[in-house]
Amino acid sequence: MADSHDTSSLKVTRELAAYVANSRFDAMPDAIHAEAKRALVNWMGGALGGADHPALEKAVAVLAPASGPGEAQVIGRDLRVDAMLAALLNSMSASVHVYDDTHPPSVAHPTSPVAAATLALAERIGASGEDTLHALILGIEVMCRVSNILTTAPAKSALGLFMTGITGGMGGAVAGAKLLKLDAQKTAWAIGSAAAQAAGIRVVHGTDATPLMPGVAARAGVTSALLAAAGFTANEGSIEGAKGFAEVFAAPANLDVAVEGLGQRFELATLTYKPYPCGIVAHPSIDACLELAHRPGFNAGAIERVELQVHPVTLKLTGLRAPRTGMQSHNSVYHWAAAALIRAKAGIAEESDEAVADPAIRTLAEKVTATADASMGMDQCTVFAHMAGGQVLESRVEHCRGSTARPMTDAELDEKFLAQSQNILDETTRGIVLQRTRGIESLGAIGDLTRLCVPQKKRHIQ
Amino acid sequence: MADSHDTSSLKVTRELAAYVANSRFDAMPDAIHAEAKRALVNWMGGALGGADHPALEKAVAVLAPASGPGEAQVIGRDLRVDAMLAALLNSMSASVHVYDDTHPPSVAHPTSPVAAATLALAERIGASGEDTLHALILGIEVMCRVSNILTTAPAKSALGLFMTGITGGMGGAVAGAKLLKLDAQKTAWAIGSAAAQAAGIRVVHGTDATPLMPGVAARAGVTSALLAAAGFTANEGSIEGAKGFAEVFAAPANLDVAVEGLGQRFELATLTYKPYPCGIVAHPSIDACLELAHRPGFNAGAIERVELQVHPVTLKLTGLRAPRTGMQSHNSVYHWAAAALIRAKAGIAEESDEAVADPAIRTLAEKVTATADASMGMDQCTVFAHMAGGQVLESRVEHCRGSTARPMTDAELDEKFLAQSQNILDETTRGIVLQRTRGIESLGAIGDLTRLCVPQKKRHIQ
Repeated sequence: MADSHDTSSLKVTRELAAYVANSRFDAMPDAIHAEAKRALVNWMGGALGGADHPALEKAVAVLAPASGPGEAQVIGRDLRVDAMLAALLNSMSASVHVYDDTHPPSVAHPTSPVAAATLALAERIGASGEDTLHALILGIEVMCRVSNILTTAPAKSALGLFMTGITGGMGGAVAGAKLLKLDAQKTAWAIGSAAAQAAGIRVVHGTDATPLMPGVAARAGVTSALLAAAGFTANEGSIEGAKGFAEVFAAPANLDVAVEGLGQRFELATLTYKPYPCGIVAHPSIDACLELAHRPGFNAGAIERVELQVHPVTLKLTGLRAPRTGMQSHNSVYHWAAAALIRAKAGIAEESDEAVADPAIRTLAEKVTATADASMGMDQCTVFAHMAGGQVLESRVEHCRGSTARPMTDAELDEKFLAQSQNILDETTRGIVLQRTRGIESLGAIGDLTRLCVPQKKRHIQ
Repeated sequence: MADSHDTSSLKVTRELAAYVANSRFDAMPDAIHAEAKRALVNWMGGALGGADHPALEKAVAVLAPASGPGEAQVIGRDLRVDAMLAALLNSMSASVHVYDDTHPPSVAHPTSPVAAATLALAERIGASGEDTLHALILGIEVMCRVSNILTTAPAKSALGLFMTGITGGMGGAVAGAKLLKLDAQKTAWAIGSAAAQAAGIRVVHGTDATPLMPGVAARAGVTSALLAAAGFTANEGSIEGAKGFAEVFAAPANLDVAVEGLGQRFELATLTYKPYPCGIVAHPSIDACLELAHRPGFNAGAIERVELQVHPVTLKLTGLRAPRTGMQSHNSVYHWAAAALIRAKAGIAEESDEAVADPAIRTLAEKVTATADASMGMDQCTVFAHMAGGQVLESRVEHCRGSTARPMTDAELDEKFLAQSQNILDETTRGIVLQRTRGIESLGAIGDLTRLCVPQKKRHIQ
């Protein structure tokens, strides 16, 4: 297919496609293999922990009756569906508690859609664990690089764009293309069909439609790869071409960053993982409030008011004053500061409808104010708790837990995985799933992992 | 669900949703019922005529094996699939020859996704013809009004946005919400879930991915309506809210036009229908060239060069110099001017790979130049044919065929329908399908129409 719209001399789409088509697993650094497995452990815990969320219940009720043959496991449910739908549902569950990973430069959350697309298609075609991991790495890498086009200076995209939805389909398409062993041209078509489906706006944050966006992106990824394999054409310069992805979604775009150091420097290496299930820009405040709450003798009941000094983006993305649901709490630094101070915890329980309705948390949240300080990093904050009697407690966070400077350890990720999966799998199975995820490259077939991810009493360990 | 992001005082999403929920078929002007049926005749011909296009063959091969139960007819094929997939495939076929209708203010093509969503869901639930027509009207109306938000001055959206993909899902969601008799809140949720999936970029024009965009939008419409019916939430101010649809896709937006005169003035009344299967901005040039070609004694072989004076957008959207496929010809005013001059016709045959490869057409197309003239209307042009011997033939088009000022007549639409359906249905069946489409409001169930749209020898007329 000729490419009729290209105007850029930088052939970003073709370069990315050629890189993917030619990539060899063995040629990648061990550290990248290891980081991808950390991302997958984090993803698998999220998919298990989110599988019974009400948003999933509704999506399954509507979509599963329209499924084709059961090619792939819906993680955490006793349900097998076609690979395209499995990608959608598994990305939804992996992101519904907003516990998924983050690519700090773009604030995209790549593994939710890319792993969902990769695992579903891998299971459909019976791919090996190594091929699956390889495809996952490439999908994440391309998704992060394309996200950088829109977000790395001088690029400027609308703050309302939900990057995970916008670029997730291309990541999934790339992973799918690699699994299907497509050549560079067809890989570029897959990217193009996914770019044509790029979608996502932040206005729906705090509602069921939020996890739907990565879900739809994951499905678009699988579909675009399968279509390209069948010869379904798309423009080969869809990212950089005139009237293309970069031109439409960023003004201006930074095309260079998509291909700079490709194969040498990995964006995947920058991924971070969330210790708390809410918008990442609220995390420094949670750290500070937890530190205060754990001080000996600290009495949350004696707080008169709380002052947060935070990066400006914290208020833009998590500035919701009074969330009314657990999902809305994702966007409220006020709720999380109050919950952390009162409960000395910040987990799934604090993200529930119950926690949001807790009068103690609500009352304290109303006493929290936040001011934006442009001199702060996104992983920094200072919290002042003004106590009855005039004492002012101060807690300063230089780098929040889970930030680039203070990454979650493997042990912390394991712990997070085990906590999220405990209502779905028994202890033995949890351990096996964790072990097989950490050792995915040695699996003969990816189904040996996914088929275990069925609620207890409904699966067989082989 | 509380609405946390609203900042606009204009509650566009809620107003549109309330209008849809409260709308009564009988309260609409007869002229609107009639225009919607013209749009549906045009759509049905397109869906039949496009059903065996190679892009459809590939899409069906990939997607149909993953279909759920056969709830709805794939128009023009011996295939029944689930309603969500039927919406996707039928919108693809209805737009694959770019013969679909146009909303001139926004250059959206509304009926392709909206009718596909409406008919598929209507068939699934056994809706009456009247309810189907009612839902179709509301879906088209809302889609056109939302498109105006991005395109009516002072609004400014990126030229690369493919409006049909961007707003088609909301149109389909509204139609679906009406069919499912959702209240205003759930209708707003349906709009929100569709807005979260809004996608489409023009860079892929001329490839298989182009019809995929309205197809995906149509599926998003059906899905969003079904999800909303199941209680799946989305923001109720997704169009006008902070970080919402209008803010992300238009800078600035013109929110007023979405609700001005709602229920009194119908955007649907402005729809136009294409006499030629290519970008609408190439149509004036085709008219002029056909007029020249039909002049007594005209000899295309004696043309030395051809000069087109056209509206600037003609070059922006159909400025492709040398298309290599029939699909790429959609974007080449040069191809169409040459084809019209040489063949004195401009139909599906001139949109084929064969026509694009025709040496006579290619040679003449190279002799065509075009200049942009900002003083011209989009439906105007002047063509000068410089003939061997020095004679210059001039043809001026004030309003092209199918424009607002010179609409296609009912008879012309019937003729277009019959021409497109002739390879799929025999003469008797074509007549019955046309009659039932024109009289859709009297059908007890929409399946009485759609079940006839199966290739000959594979269906029963009841």
